[in-house]
Amino acid sequence: MSKKIVVVHKLLDPELAEKIIEKGSELGYRVEYYKSVEEAIPACADAEIIYGGNPALVKAAPLLKWYNASSVGVDAYLKDKDLLKEDVILTNSAGAYGPSVSEHGLMTTLMVLRREWEYASFVQNRVWKNDLLVGSINGSYVTILGTGDIGTGYAEKVRGCGASHITGINRSGHAAGDVYDETAAMADIDAYLPLTDILFMCLPGTPETVGILSEERIASMKKTAVVINVGRGSAVDQKALIRAINEKRIGGAALDVFETEPIPEDDPVWNTPGLLVTTHNAGNMTAAVTRRRNVDQFLENLECYTKGLPMKHVVRRDLGY
Amino acid sequence: MSKKIVVVHKLLDPELAEKIIEKGSELGYRVEYYKSVEEAIPACADAEIIYGGNPALVKAAPLLKWYNASSVGVDAYLKDKDLLKEDVILTNSAGAYGPSVSEHGLMTTLMVLRREWEYASFVQNRVWKNDLLVGSINGSYVTILGTGDIGTGYAEKVRGCGASHITGINRSGHAAGDVYDETAAMADIDAYLPLTDILFMCLPGTPETVGILSEERIASMKKTAVVINVGRGSAVDQKALIRAINEKRIGGAALDVFETEPIPEDDPVWNTPGLLVTTHNAGNMTAAVTRRRNVDQFLENLECYTKGLPMKHVVRRDLGY
Repeated sequence: MSKKIVVVHKLLDPELAEKIIEKGSELGYRVEYYKSVEEAIPACADAEIIYGGNPALVKAAPLLKWYNASSVGVDAYLKDKDLLKEDVILTNSAGAYGPSVSEHGLMTTLMVLRREWEYASFVQNRVWKNDLLVGSINGSYVTILGTGDIGTGYAEKVRGCGASHITGINRSGHAAGDVYDETAAMADIDAYLPLTDILFMCLPGTPETVGILSEERIASMKKTAVVINVGRGSAVDQKALIRAINEKRIGGAALDVFETEPIPEDDPVWNTPGLLVTTHNAGNMTAAVTRRRNVDQFLENLECYTKGLPMKHVVRRDLGY
Repeated sequence: MSKKIVVVHKLLDPELAEKIIEKGSELGYRVEYYKSVEEAIPACADAEIIYGGNPALVKAAPLLKWYNASSVGVDAYLKDKDLLKEDVILTNSAGAYGPSVSEHGLMTTLMVLRREWEYASFVQNRVWKNDLLVGSINGSYVTILGTGDIGTGYAEKVRGCGASHITGINRSGHAAGDVYDETAAMADIDAYLPLTDILFMCLPGTPETVGILSEERIASMKKTAVVINVGRGSAVDQKALIRAINEKRIGGAALDVFETEPIPEDDPVWNTPGLLVTTHNAGNMTAAVTRRRNVDQFLENLECYTKGLPMKHVVRRDLGY
């Protein structure tokens, strides 16, 4: 009986599923494709490889050797230390989400700067009004927390919009590409926040990133600064941010990720003027480019895996990404 | 009695008004600044130069030698041929609006591609949903009608977002900068529309541009294509566009300009799903960068005017821009 790959994703295009099946067969695998986790669970019992987006799949797969997360964030797989055995390879889909998530970040940045939701309420009420003062990315000092493909994709986009200075901040301060004017280590973040007009956050959910945008740090920022978070909700002190917005101590914010998801029905986050809420929809395989890259990266890794070559996007469990 | 400049704009920052007054005095002018057209009208009686945004100012100024429009579009000044005497210099503020209008265009492009107004309705109803399929600028074929600073600013931005091909179309097909993969003449537009994923329109309101995006041309476009118009509403057959959206023959549109402005209360444009409406707010001096550039360009021209040097942004009345 041939070795088995289980692929699980509700949004995968038929031709991409077919592509995995073909390539898998070519490399000696039986590939089973499921749209829902529930249907896939029984099939995981003898799976060697799983490509999916839910920790329940791991639990159901005692023979698992490689789990390929269709997401970038893998905190859900690492918080329970007993879930993934030491010898199971864990890869994520970093690199697949850059275009979609950075476009979402750019869109929401512009929506906050240009007060688009105030304008939208005029349109809903059929009111013709066009004299609200708006901000611009042009000439702005942009600080990006997280310089992977999402942060760097965002940097390229705000560069195209005429940002005057782009600082990339990552764990160690390592160089991250020509698009940045400078890079700095997370330990030095406090030197950059008071200079920042636009703070873009795309950090992984690790113990080190929890609460990075604290009440004190929010207070150190310009009154006109805007905060955009597409990484993990745990990185922001959400209540402190909402207070700062309500008290006009900060210019506004757009959050795609939250301390609790889904957002509880009665959470003030839903209706804070100046806070643009999106429903963790920046990535989520909804863009064709994401799905294509996601599958292509998996198949490239599958080839490496079968040939014993080094794989890409292998998660370092000590770092959490 | 010294020569007189009348400056009229409700959104001008005090320090920018002050800057005009200082520079004007330096060059031998008395400068009067008004926030409203009504207040300014009597002062126009002996004005040599007017910097403003309303044709009524011209009517009130029999001694006028130079009218500097704070807008880019000057159709309102040219449609009545008797308004501006032949020997009055007419300049516009092309070059000042690029950042703001192209950022608006980029934002609304992304909002249409990413179905942001559908998502916004979920958020309004506190519904957590994030699986709508969305589009991307990445890999898109972009066609830009009008290759001035707005069109070219937009080209730079979609380039930063990974557009795969950018065609700029202008009257003659003249070269318009390295950011374009190619430029073409308006006469050849029909060859490009069927290839286009994103059509960005920033054309002036002239007899030649009226109805350029006709019903037939809309029908020649891809079912997934999106149309963004920030130029003049007269360039689009608005009813045909709405029909195409309703019948899913086109992917969606964002209009900032309309056949009739303000939009009539009962116009279907207000509530066509798939059509993002903004209230002609892309430019309108609401961004600080626009106001700064607008004033700086005027003062540069003022220096040229007083010294008899060639002025910039002089409108060619035969072309209308």
